[in-house]
Amino acid sequence: MPMTPEAIDAFLAEPRMAHLATVDAEGRPRVRPVWYLWRDGALWITTRQRVRHTGRDLTTSPTVAVSIASEERPYRAVVVHGRPEVIPKDRDALSDVATRYGEAQGRAFVEEAMAQDDRVILRIVPDELISWDYGTTS
Amino acid sequence: MPMTPEAIDAFLAEPRMAHLATVDAEGRPRVRPVWYLWRDGALWITTRQRVRHTGRDLTTSPTVAVSIASEERPYRAVVVHGRPEVIPKDRDALSDVATRYGEAQGRAFVEEAMAQDDRVILRIVPDELISWDYGTTS
Repeated sequence: MPMTPEAIDAFLAEPRMAHLATVDAEGRPRVRPVWYLWRDGALWITTRQRVRHTGRDLTTSPTVAVSIASEERPYRAVVVHGRPEVIPKDRDALSDVATRYGEAQGRAFVEEAMAQDDRVILRIVPDELISWDYGTTS
Repeated sequence: MPMTPEAIDAFLAEPRMAHLATVDAEGRPRVRPVWYLWRDGALWITTRQRVRHTGRDLTTSPTVAVSIASEERPYRAVVVHGRPEVIPKDRDALSDVATRYGEAQGRAFVEEAMAQDDRVILRIVPDELISWDYGTTS
């Protein structure tokens, strides 16, 4: 069963891991866990262009897919497809994403991240958003 | 920091969600949450060929990527790349995967899954396995 828009907002407000999938230059999939923030109908993700190969992948294949799922029953999941806007790192935006996952650790992360020259923010407005709310996974 | 082989086995023995990424016929990424079992150096995943588009994607792009991450600190993650062997559904193998996520619910799932004509098992021997054990995500 798909979730209602209100249920999707509530689900995405919880601080879960997101799994960001891209396609590399050889046409093979790549996926890595990332933090996210769902705000104003967009996913904000912070990642590294070189270290996580995200920048290289987006150059040849600009569409991404993102999977976010509950670990516990009842299983719920959201999958987003879209073409990210790459935003230069910004202290406030990094902090908004990172402090969802712990206030003190989030702040420490922002200091590290601001010193990483390949750190960026991806803003993804979904072209497609699929949701499930179910008792058994498939 | 990468994990040791023993730490990878221990991490993958816990019943987390895996996120299975494929590439569709248009070269775009797709990703969905799945259950898995790590056994004898292979990931066993159960999915549906049609309903989750897995079969269609594997026809044109036979390589997958799988991401498994802890939700809590210290953050740990494993990413596997490989070319799955597609195995017809088998009651014992389905049960071995599903009952990791709850004995009674796993058994009920097997009954449902055995009735699904597109239900399969993917066995993935990693061509590449990347692991992290770290305090902050990136």
